[in-house]
Amino acid sequence: MGGGTGTFVVLSGLKQHDVDLGVIVNMMDSGGSTGRLRVQLGVLPPGDIRQCFVALSEAPDLWRRLFLYRFENGDFDGHNFGNIFLSTLEKVSKNYDEVLETASFVLKTKGKVLPVTHKKTNLCVEYSNGKVVKGEAEIDSNLLGQTTIKKAFLEPTVAAYPQSIQRIAESDVLVIGPGDLYTSIIPLFLVDGVREALQKTKAKIMYIVNLMTKSGQTNNYTAKDHVRDIETYLGRKVDAIIMHKGVLNEEIVNWYESHNEQTVRDDLGNDVRVVRANVADNMPVAPNNADKISSYARSILRHDSTRLANTIMTLL
Amino acid sequence: MGGGTGTFVVLSGLKQHDVDLGVIVNMMDSGGSTGRLRVQLGVLPPGDIRQCFVALSEAPDLWRRLFLYRFENGDFDGHNFGNIFLSTLEKVSKNYDEVLETASFVLKTKGKVLPVTHKKTNLCVEYSNGKVVKGEAEIDSNLLGQTTIKKAFLEPTVAAYPQSIQRIAESDVLVIGPGDLYTSIIPLFLVDGVREALQKTKAKIMYIVNLMTKSGQTNNYTAKDHVRDIETYLGRKVDAIIMHKGVLNEEIVNWYESHNEQTVRDDLGNDVRVVRANVADNMPVAPNNADKISSYARSILRHDSTRLANTIMTLL
Repeated sequence: MGGGTGTFVVLSGLKQHDVDLGVIVNMMDSGGSTGRLRVQLGVLPPGDIRQCFVALSEAPDLWRRLFLYRFENGDFDGHNFGNIFLSTLEKVSKNYDEVLETASFVLKTKGKVLPVTHKKTNLCVEYSNGKVVKGEAEIDSNLLGQTTIKKAFLEPTVAAYPQSIQRIAESDVLVIGPGDLYTSIIPLFLVDGVREALQKTKAKIMYIVNLMTKSGQTNNYTAKDHVRDIETYLGRKVDAIIMHKGVLNEEIVNWYESHNEQTVRDDLGNDVRVVRANVADNMPVAPNNADKISSYARSILRHDSTRLANTIMTLL
Repeated sequence: MGGGTGTFVVLSGLKQHDVDLGVIVNMMDSGGSTGRLRVQLGVLPPGDIRQCFVALSEAPDLWRRLFLYRFENGDFDGHNFGNIFLSTLEKVSKNYDEVLETASFVLKTKGKVLPVTHKKTNLCVEYSNGKVVKGEAEIDSNLLGQTTIKKAFLEPTVAAYPQSIQRIAESDVLVIGPGDLYTSIIPLFLVDGVREALQKTKAKIMYIVNLMTKSGQTNNYTAKDHVRDIETYLGRKVDAIIMHKGVLNEEIVNWYESHNEQTVRDDLGNDVRVVRANVADNMPVAPNNADKISSYARSILRHDSTRLANTIMTLL
């Protein structure tokens, strides 16, 4: 369960294993190419769902390249082809099921891509100083406040996609994260029915702690802070916590610190649920300069998909 | 052989028959969405080839709707999704063969779509007053001159797509037109190797005469004038000429006359090659207002695909 590059990494790794995969995707993104398509075409946000389709794709490499292609000039400057594809498909389809089936067909996805909701909604947060910000992109780019987030909510409230609820009920294991806590992960639990389904399911719930804090939403957050917020919105305890253990590339850490972001400190002590492993990819990912529509930089440090998936597999 | 809506109509009709279909497509379009994609992305013109893929498609209707979808606002205003798809595919493909194969695969085309060339070139014409205009879109929108076209040429000269030459050699019948004489049809014969192949082939060549003249390129042209120009650029005689016979919708004819365009007069007399039949569709096609990028109006009178195809079939 998630959205964004963290989920892309988890899916890419798990795809190599013999598991019946599914992903429940955040549908609240409103930044960059996705945000413009939402406003201009009145569609659901395509960005996160597109990344999941590509991660699970077993189509020839050409299709993956096509779906990841980002225009760098002209009328489409900054837009991603996969986003345009999904948005146009939504415009000509009877319903969102048809969009998902068609994308699954052309990208030959291994596993199921499920939107957490197929209704339009916006993420809103209230900071501890009382300020309310509406819209995922606005929250993502609201980097100045050192205040923390008191409450996240959706406006309007929306029902979950029925197959997502069913998937939560029927899964053996649910993997949460990694990803921006308030803009990629917690929004999933705000959709009507999801929290209840997560409380009822017999599935084992694993939470993968982020490597770095996120300016504007998890300033100075330790691992415990992450787990606490997740459990607050889940309304239950998680069963396992995957925590990176190992030295991080100093250059990368310095880059983050210059952006007011730090390594997430492991203060989980001897919590028996914690599994510590070297799951970071210490090769910096180049910030994607082509994403000119976005105002914020993307993460340059990611989990290592193979080692992270192997760690998840040992816990099954 | 052709490009544009005339070819779409012929293909849509012939697709209903049990024939091994192929289409050799004009690659000189430079107007509208196509022209912008050419300039901004440095790709081959996608518009005509996209129309042929859709005409021959046996994919579920959703795919046809997707490929014909035209954006009406926002960043993509006036662009067609099929054009964006083909252009992006070209950006991520090894070569143009891969573009054609992939489009054929997703659209499940019945028959072969072959570009007349896979090299970039521009159509140029010299008018009888000596003026030279470069670029298909510029020729198309050059409606003011009452002068006729003396010569059409390509700049640069380009080689034909080898499979197109092969197809000309191996076909039993070649159908030329209908379509704008100087911007859709004659450019095909200007590609290196095409004229020679057409002179050598044992295929029967049919020419479908346009219903209306085209302002700026075939002002006051009669049927004979059309045939003469075609044969000049072919370098040989055609074997059959299909000519519409029947009353045309007065309202449509008035619309054309207000745009300085007239019914093509049948002055072919008792030329034994002529087959006269009621092949016009008298239901006006709404001018496509969504094509905001184009400066010129599209045709509102078209051939009837079923009756035209039936007439072609009687001549096989």
